[in-house]
Amino acid sequence: MEKLIITAALTGAEVTREQQPNLPITPDEIADAAFECAKAGAAIVHVHGRYDDGTPTQDKEVYRQIITKVRERCDVIVQVSTGGAVGMTAQERLAPVTLKPEMATLSMGSVNFGNDVFMNHPDDMDIFATTMKDLGVKIEYEVFDTGMITTVNRWLKKGLITAPLHVDFVLGIPGAMAGTPEALMYMRSQLPADASWTVAGIGAAQLPLATMAIILGGHVRVGFEDNVYYRKGELANSNAQLVERVARISREHDRAVATPDEARKILGMPARA
Amino acid sequence: MEKLIITAALTGAEVTREQQPNLPITPDEIADAAFECAKAGAAIVHVHGRYDDGTPTQDKEVYRQIITKVRERCDVIVQVSTGGAVGMTAQERLAPVTLKPEMATLSMGSVNFGNDVFMNHPDDMDIFATTMKDLGVKIEYEVFDTGMITTVNRWLKKGLITAPLHVDFVLGIPGAMAGTPEALMYMRSQLPADASWTVAGIGAAQLPLATMAIILGGHVRVGFEDNVYYRKGELANSNAQLVERVARISREHDRAVATPDEARKILGMPARA
Amino acid sequence: MEKLIITAALTGAEVTREQQPNLPITPDEIADAAFECAKAGAAIVHVHGRYDDGTPTQDKEVYRQIITKVRERCDVIVQVSTGGAVGMTAQERLAPVTLKPEMATLSMGSVNFGNDVFMNHPDDMDIFATTMKDLGVKIEYEVFDTGMITTVNRWLKKGLITAPLHVDFVLGIPGAMAGTPEALMYMRSQLPADASWTVAGIGAAQLPLATMAIILGGHVRVGFEDNVYYRKGELANSNAQLVERVARISREHDRAVATPDEARKILGMPARA
Amino acid sequence: MEKLIITAALTGAEVTREQQPNLPITPDEIADAAFECAKAGAAIVHVHGRYDDGTPTQDKEVYRQIITKVRERCDVIVQVSTGGAVGMTAQERLAPVTLKPEMATLSMGSVNFGNDVFMNHPDDMDIFATTMKDLGVKIEYEVFDTGMITTVNRWLKKGLITAPLHVDFVLGIPGAMAGTPEALMYMRSQLPADASWTVAGIGAAQLPLATMAIILGGHVRVGFEDNVYYRKGELANSNAQLVERVARISREHDRAVATPDEARKILGMPARA
Ligand SMILES: [Mg+2]
Ligand SMILES: [Mg+2]
Ligand SMILES: [Zn+2]
Ligand SMILES: [Zn+2]
Ligand SMILES: [Zn+2]
Ligand SMILES: [Zn+2]
Repeated sequence: MEKLIITAALTGAEVTREQQPNLPITPDEIADAAFECAKAGAAIVHVHGRYDDGTPTQDKEVYRQIITKVRERCDVIVQVSTGGAVGMTAQERLAPVTLKPEMATLSMGSVNFGNDVFMNHPDDMDIFATTMKDLGVKIEYEVFDTGMITTVNRWLKKGLITAPLHVDFVLGIPGAMAGTPEALMYMRSQLPADASWTVAGIGAAQLPLATMAIILGGHVRVGFEDNVYYRKGELANSNAQLVERVARISREHDRAVATPDEARKILGMPARA
Repeated sequence: MEKLIITAALTGAEVTREQQPNLPITPDEIADAAFECAKAGAAIVHVHGRYDDGTPTQDKEVYRQIITKVRERCDVIVQVSTGGAVGMTAQERLAPVTLKPEMATLSMGSVNFGNDVFMNHPDDMDIFATTMKDLGVKIEYEVFDTGMITTVNRWLKKGLITAPLHVDFVLGIPGAMAGTPEALMYMRSQLPADASWTVAGIGAAQLPLATMAIILGGHVRVGFEDNVYYRKGELANSNAQLVERVARISREHDRAVATPDEARKILGMPARA
Repeated sequence: MEKLIITAALTGAEVTREQQPNLPITPDEIADAAFECAKAGAAIVHVHGRYDDGTPTQDKEVYRQIITKVRERCDVIVQVSTGGAVGMTAQERLAPVTLKPEMATLSMGSVNFGNDVFMNHPDDMDIFATTMKDLGVKIEYEVFDTGMITTVNRWLKKGLITAPLHVDFVLGIPGAMAGTPEALMYMRSQLPADASWTVAGIGAAQLPLATMAIILGGHVRVGFEDNVYYRKGELANSNAQLVERVARISREHDRAVATPDEARKILGMPARA
Repeated sequence: MEKLIITAALTGAEVTREQQPNLPITPDEIADAAFECAKAGAAIVHVHGRYDDGTPTQDKEVYRQIITKVRERCDVIVQVSTGGAVGMTAQERLAPVTLKPEMATLSMGSVNFGNDVFMNHPDDMDIFATTMKDLGVKIEYEVFDTGMITTVNRWLKKGLITAPLHVDFVLGIPGAMAGTPEALMYMRSQLPADASWTVAGIGAAQLPLATMAIILGGHVRVGFEDNVYYRKGELANSNAQLVERVARISREHDRAVATPDEARKILGMPARA
């Protein structure tokens, strides 16, 4: 089994300081959190831009600062979000990709998110994929329900995207696929051969699905974007605390945790210059 | 096992006469098709409005004519679409429900449909459900991917909707859940206890999923909206031809086909006045 | 999808004339039944020896007569049972294989059958497999529960048996795997790549599992050995009547029925001399 | 979720000192091991009798000593094996049950175990069940493949056994069901409503299946009977070391470990006198 790649989803677009007092918001805070998470075992940090007041933004300058500051601190892979926040235009969401980050997300369809619609028009998806490919940005395909993994497979067959693929199953958002073991098993059964995968369980599904991924040979995403609790009724102290637990559980299962460089190799990414 | 309820989806919003020369378009044609399908074993007709030139419409007057003309010909349950055509507003789509048809569809989320986004905002879904309930219209929950059946379950628990529920799994649209036996088995495993279900397989998935539903105790939707072929490379002559085959296969399995009145009873609908 | 191979399991070891008055027992009756089944669409007949009083036997002479008489009547593939009847010794059960029939069954493990134990010791299984291989007899692996398909996979990896494999899932015997769609889907998911498979549903499971196999690309076994009814409460008139229904359902699904020669090709067997 | 019940399968019938130098064999060694395992979190010890030279035995006196010595040391539930060793007669295997231990296993069918047949004739199973019931011994139903859980369900419907049921899925023995997550998910889906379950993964399957059970709300069996390694290539020091790891992983998932008394309550057993 490959070593475990842990992604820390540090901030997201929606979580607030009211919900989680230790949420990293500014580029400096995000860089600090990334550093701590990397020490705890994260090979990738998944980042969203925020203005200093917490408002979500896809502003290129904000992302430039995040990337620069993270890189000053450590070697972790920076994965920028192109999901942005619900309501943003596609063009707006794509902006940080033009910075040529090592990695970016690509959401593979539309789905209701709680009381909102998370729109990803096929034409926009196509532009996102092409841009990432042209700029040499490694894609993580974000899959929120089964139709999106079907789309990944269809695009692969058509040659619109090329192997090796890395897919993230985001499970447990109200409106999208449930955060259950059965859901994860189904998703995994639909994966293109030789694709790697990670799972981001939402809320209380974060830990059980992370552990299942450790067992099943997948990879894991944890962090405040998806879940702010350490256990029922107890907020986590930090993103790193969530990463540490996953790393401990992985080691209990005799599965070592990948460094950023090992993760680059597993994912078929170029080594860092 | 309950008798089999066959729904004929006669027209849809997108199929053209170029694709299927025998597509029923006008209220008279739709009433004729409904009559033939009822003779062949359909208990429900699922209808979409079209102007005489084929343009899709949710115009109340068009639906009024369809319902009136169908009722003159036979006792089949008329189920109006509130999916309408991609691009219509929610208010537009809801119009035919105000005619108090016996039954109407309610799409339970947003999803990409081929190169379009089929938007169903939760607020609109809520208005649709409330209106149907208030007007005494039996709801068929349209489920295109697993997040939508999760939403059905969530709404049921919250008391937003009430049993007995009848759910339609629409499987095989590019962007939505695949039209495979595995997909159907998964969906069925997620159904609320005591809910009835039907399956609408798209294209080549229509027949195999119909037959699986016969075996599994579900119900079946066929018709030109979902599939215009009788077999690979051979167009169907009529909607009724597709209904007849399902009825034959059901009888081979010693499962009788429900009349409209039997279907009303199975679905917990009032008898017709 | 390959053409459908229908196997008729004409007699079995346990069914009696009291249970099914039209059960073929003598070699002549078996040859007649085989002829009718072949006309109805069967490409293979699965046969068990009986003395004229109905007692099960693996007597080589009885099998020799069956094979001779069937071949006089038609070209159907004769598959001899090596399951025999519960209580027979392994050596006894293996006897008909020495006649070099075209095909024979090989049960892949031990399992309770109702109030008996159906014993298949690994050492005996090994002897059976080796003998069949040495004599050029095509093997059908009989699998009654999941551990037996696991054993098929293990033997394949070890090189004890060689591709192309043909596996029969016998589902619904009390003590063995259930005769449900879920069971069949699970079994199918465990099959070695490129293996062909058939399903023998027991009792009321015969028809639904047969139809699922038609849809899923598998093959089908029906007949009095597994089920004596045509429908609930109504005995079948003949084995051929059960074959005919499967053939009709397959044609409804646009899947043609294989002739014996087509079956030989699909299964990787030599053409008949 | 209920607290986690950990069973330590200390010795088994087949493991040798050559394979695992720290295997407990004599009643004193077994009592020591039971004590350590209880301290580490085990609520149940599953025991097999051995003569001092390691030969497996169902000798009542040996079991009497084991039970007496374990009870002197701690309050852990003693579960005696009635599987015994392959080749023993049913009557021989049943002997320790006459000591009225708190709990005993009941194997629910026959299956090949590697190069042997593990025979459990339905008549014997019936005698075992009746004896245990009459003597007030709590039954753990041992299920090695899906036909056995089907039998549990059939017996429950017939009233041969009564709820609350506790079932052990033993997964990964060559010849029986595979030790995979898919196998466990399937088994769990077949469980009678309200039954509790535990999983005993064999060899390398022990740890991943244990962790899955923690996540899925099941219970866990570990120990030298099923697996002698701590990790690939490294023997475990003791049964307790295997128990400790499961307890740690369970606590990481915020699932507390049940004491013997809590286990009795969860399983519907009487409190100890
Ligand atoms: Mg969706
Ligand atoms: Mg078995
Ligand atoms: Zn994100
Ligand atoms: Zn429609
Ligand atoms: Zn047979
Ligand atoms: Zn044991």
